[in-house]
Amino acid sequence: MNYQQTLNEINTGLDCAKFGGKVANYIPELANIDPNKFGIHLCCIQKGNYSIGDNEEKFSIQSISKVFALAMAYPMLGEKLWKRVGVEPSGNPFNSLVQLEYESGIPRNPLINAGALVICDILISKLKSPKEDFLNYVRGLAGNEDIYFNEKVAESEKNSGYRNVALANLMKSFGNIENLVEDVVDFYFYMCSIEMSCKELAQTFLVFANHGAHFVTGEKILSESQSKRLSAIMLTCGFYDQAGEFTFKVGLPGKSGVGGGIAAIFPEHYSVAIWSPKLNKAGNSVLGMEVLERLTTETKLSIF
Amino acid sequence: MNYQQTLNEINTGLDCAKFGGKVANYIPELANIDPNKFGIHLCCIQKGNYSIGDNEEKFSIQSISKVFALAMAYPMLGEKLWKRVGVEPSGNPFNSLVQLEYESGIPRNPLINAGALVICDILISKLKSPKEDFLNYVRGLAGNEDIYFNEKVAESEKNSGYRNVALANLMKSFGNIENLVEDVVDFYFYMCSIEMSCKELAQTFLVFANHGAHFVTGEKILSESQSKRLSAIMLTCGFYDQAGEFTFKVGLPGKSGVGGGIAAIFPEHYSVAIWSPKLNKAGNSVLGMEVLERLTTETKLSIF
Amino acid sequence: MNYQQTLNEINTGLDCAKFGGKVANYIPELANIDPNKFGIHLCCIQKGNYSIGDNEEKFSIQSISKVFALAMAYPMLGEKLWKRVGVEPSGNPFNSLVQLEYESGIPRNPLINAGALVICDILISKLKSPKEDFLNYVRGLAGNEDIYFNEKVAESEKNSGYRNVALANLMKSFGNIENLVEDVVDFYFYMCSIEMSCKELAQTFLVFANHGAHFVTGEKILSESQSKRLSAIMLTCGFYDQAGEFTFKVGLPGKSGVGGGIAAIFPEHYSVAIWSPKLNKAGNSVLGMEVLERLTTETKLSIF
Amino acid sequence: MNYQQTLNEINTGLDCAKFGGKVANYIPELANIDPNKFGIHLCCIQKGNYSIGDNEEKFSIQSISKVFALAMAYPMLGEKLWKRVGVEPSGNPFNSLVQLEYESGIPRNPLINAGALVICDILISKLKSPKEDFLNYVRGLAGNEDIYFNEKVAESEKNSGYRNVALANLMKSFGNIENLVEDVVDFYFYMCSIEMSCKELAQTFLVFANHGAHFVTGEKILSESQSKRLSAIMLTCGFYDQAGEFTFKVGLPGKSGVGGGIAAIFPEHYSVAIWSPKLNKAGNSVLGMEVLERLTTETKLSIF
Repeated sequence: MNYQQTLNEINTGLDCAKFGGKVANYIPELANIDPNKFGIHLCCIQKGNYSIGDNEEKFSIQSISKVFALAMAYPMLGEKLWKRVGVEPSGNPFNSLVQLEYESGIPRNPLINAGALVICDILISKLKSPKEDFLNYVRGLAGNEDIYFNEKVAESEKNSGYRNVALANLMKSFGNIENLVEDVVDFYFYMCSIEMSCKELAQTFLVFANHGAHFVTGEKILSESQSKRLSAIMLTCGFYDQAGEFTFKVGLPGKSGVGGGIAAIFPEHYSVAIWSPKLNKAGNSVLGMEVLERLTTETKLSIF
Repeated sequence: MNYQQTLNEINTGLDCAKFGGKVANYIPELANIDPNKFGIHLCCIQKGNYSIGDNEEKFSIQSISKVFALAMAYPMLGEKLWKRVGVEPSGNPFNSLVQLEYESGIPRNPLINAGALVICDILISKLKSPKEDFLNYVRGLAGNEDIYFNEKVAESEKNSGYRNVALANLMKSFGNIENLVEDVVDFYFYMCSIEMSCKELAQTFLVFANHGAHFVTGEKILSESQSKRLSAIMLTCGFYDQAGEFTFKVGLPGKSGVGGGIAAIFPEHYSVAIWSPKLNKAGNSVLGMEVLERLTTETKLSIF
Repeated sequence: MNYQQTLNEINTGLDCAKFGGKVANYIPELANIDPNKFGIHLCCIQKGNYSIGDNEEKFSIQSISKVFALAMAYPMLGEKLWKRVGVEPSGNPFNSLVQLEYESGIPRNPLINAGALVICDILISKLKSPKEDFLNYVRGLAGNEDIYFNEKVAESEKNSGYRNVALANLMKSFGNIENLVEDVVDFYFYMCSIEMSCKELAQTFLVFANHGAHFVTGEKILSESQSKRLSAIMLTCGFYDQAGEFTFKVGLPGKSGVGGGIAAIFPEHYSVAIWSPKLNKAGNSVLGMEVLERLTTETKLSIF
Repeated sequence: MNYQQTLNEINTGLDCAKFGGKVANYIPELANIDPNKFGIHLCCIQKGNYSIGDNEEKFSIQSISKVFALAMAYPMLGEKLWKRVGVEPSGNPFNSLVQLEYESGIPRNPLINAGALVICDILISKLKSPKEDFLNYVRGLAGNEDIYFNEKVAESEKNSGYRNVALANLMKSFGNIENLVEDVVDFYFYMCSIEMSCKELAQTFLVFANHGAHFVTGEKILSESQSKRLSAIMLTCGFYDQAGEFTFKVGLPGKSGVGGGIAAIFPEHYSVAIWSPKLNKAGNSVLGMEVLERLTTETKLSIF
């Protein structure tokens, strides 16, 4: 499989002007991003690296960080984790608060905001220096020390993050948040503020394509079963209210963020990350979705 | 891969008494089934057949029939189909009516009742003799003429199927049902009343594991893209409100029915059908879920 | 109190052109009404009659008929009636289906569609010739034989009434409809098709302002307690999703219909009916609401 | 009307043991109340005072305070108030969060928690020393300086009030809370912690039965129109999810609190307050509801 040639063809064939979408604008730090940024990076499990455009430029990974938080918390609690958060897709977005009410404060899955807040709560309870330890965990996955929180983004999010505070308080009213809501929310926004490039994201996600084994050290970060289950959750829950459409058109486990990034894996073959800041109404990168659809169509490689 | 040995080991290791569940009891024809019936049939894409127990006994396939209806309707309308029904998981079951209201009569996906009713409406519009043509389509997939509706079951369902009539009327109020509600519902209940054995189901599903090519004739029933997309929908929407859990634990596209059947595929490898009438609260066969989880664990074959 | 002078002043002061609204257009028979029709009729409990404009022209009373159905069914079942329908306001309209699901097929109150369908079901079970008997009951209340169904309207409603059929089927799935859905819905649409003038409506409603005693014969149609309770239900549930606003601004028990009519009472004082076909978004007559607000403001008579 | 005799008869006729209910137990300060406390106090607009039992013992008025907050805020903003909060009943309780989402952070009415939080936000913006000024306002209404917050109750509520914090944050995310959520919630819990006796409550509510004129000073606290509208809101929204039932059975505007108190008015005639700590599932005092039903039945005085 000549991945570089495929990426080149996809890139050449893309008439970017045809695709709409809007850059996230709820905080100035995201609103000011150049909407034409565009990068792809693919890491083959057999060590090849293939790329296009701004693949080495860092951006705000936002919700993609939820995958790292889940990967870190899962081995800590094992299957007990699923007493505090489910594994079912969430249906349409407005339901988050309703479902929490009906389902007694247990979020549908760890990749929606409510579920990620529960995972943050677990990490805060388990870690000595939560933010530092989490950052080091991500650096370890990436094999790269040059990864940081963007404190300005984190603080900006806090100033408009009332809905997340609402979710955390509602779950605390059901006893599903152990720590102070302000600590949980603070950790959550720092986690989301991490900045990485497509290259770094793809390298980090390779561990999930590799059944939980670190691509450099070979260390088992997740058991094979845990790695598969995390992939299953990404497939069914990784794209907000478009998880079904992503599975339908692309067929790869992955996760998107409102910074315009998408990271995905084809198990046993490759990991890939795309960055294009313009989002559709569901909050997913328009070009990111398109590129991944073309990638699986061109390569005829998908999990189905 | 020695599938027969794996099935034997799973069968031997199952302490069936440990597993609870209740036989569907909303119509007498289903309530009177022997709860201890148990069959497995696996068809390898390379032509092997492996089985356990009551694999040749026919049972009511119920919602599994929705996959056949979708497979028949998809090539008729192509991608236009998705203007009338979505591809997203439905979240929790109570939402069906709410979602229809908010989403203007467009059901979330073709494997929930509302979506299947839309597919039935399409088939009625397109087919000359809808019931007969549909039955022949299923017989063709199975390579077997000995497949029939159970009229007694169909009529019994009609007498208690007020909720489905409600769904169809609500969609008709939004203009998403073309034919008479009574005709749509009649077709729907006949379709669900089809009786097949595990062996017949597995042979029928082989076409979906085989990228749309009939396992005997080689005829392209679905294009490769259509077959993949149908698999994606089964994965994200095939198990009522447990689709996420099934993907998490089993990781195969499939579909369950309240008759206690489950049919699933591992693309490019095999199709498999299980029958055990006792259902969990979500309406899925308890032993069926368990057997499939063990199958993917033992064989270490899953799509992730 | 000089009611005629008050009505004249209200009429003179109304700059009708200022008020918007749209005539109901879901069936041709309603859509073709002259939007400028305007009538008021007030019956004082001490026998005076006061009027403005088209007060003797008949129009489609639509949902106002639900009050008559409730008044007829209430003495038949007594307080047992409330096992099949509640007395709580329904919150916003979209909830009707959700609430039926959560509340096991028991509608919130008898003046929303679902609740009125239950009342129709009760009348069908209790009456020998349901439509004829009901029409005679209304004629009796009005002291006037010249009141009829409009069959063309009734049949037209049936052809677009899928949502009501959906509601009835959903309730039947919970066991809260005894008769055939088609019979219940047929009765419902006939009942709604009754045509009356403001004068006739006001005379009919006088019984509710008079603690249940017929204004001519003195016959006790309802006990004092039943009459008060029916008034309470009109106050809290009579104006779709604007019941609170109507109580807030007008403060009289009443009921509106999409034909543009509103009938209301001031207990122990008067009954009043208005007709103006242009409706606001909640389905209530724009001018009808305005006139009643001015009436209670000018007369300084309200229940508060 | 001999009110004292009526109260005595009601009291004698009550077999309290027959009535169930549970004392609110979410904070220790409420849980430890003697469940057999029972007091009634009725103030006639013509100055008579009639009472039974523990009518001079103070208890936590809880949500009854929402009426005072609304009465204080209404003249400050006039009809502009209704841009920030509605006047419609809320349907069933679970909807509060859903409705806020759908209706863009505008609560249904000022007597549910979300609406009361908006009123608190308004008072904080308008008052120099919010808590002190509010307490003085209530003292002024009561004509009695001996009224205080219970700080222990207020602090206890804060420690379990995550759901109210969730509501406030959700509304802030829609821009409908101006002040810091912690300040709004702090004020809210202090307001709810006010302790008053039945006698004090009845005397305070007399102003609402008296068209807004203070019963001692004659000062116009509310305009006649404002007073009527406040009564209308109490009638349609004052009893959580039982507002309809209360109107149906009692027919008086009023407000209940989880401390077991109910205050109600019969406009132009009397105000009345009851205290009995055992609550039904909807959170209303079981005996309080019963006593008021008997009071309006015995006196044959109701607004209908």
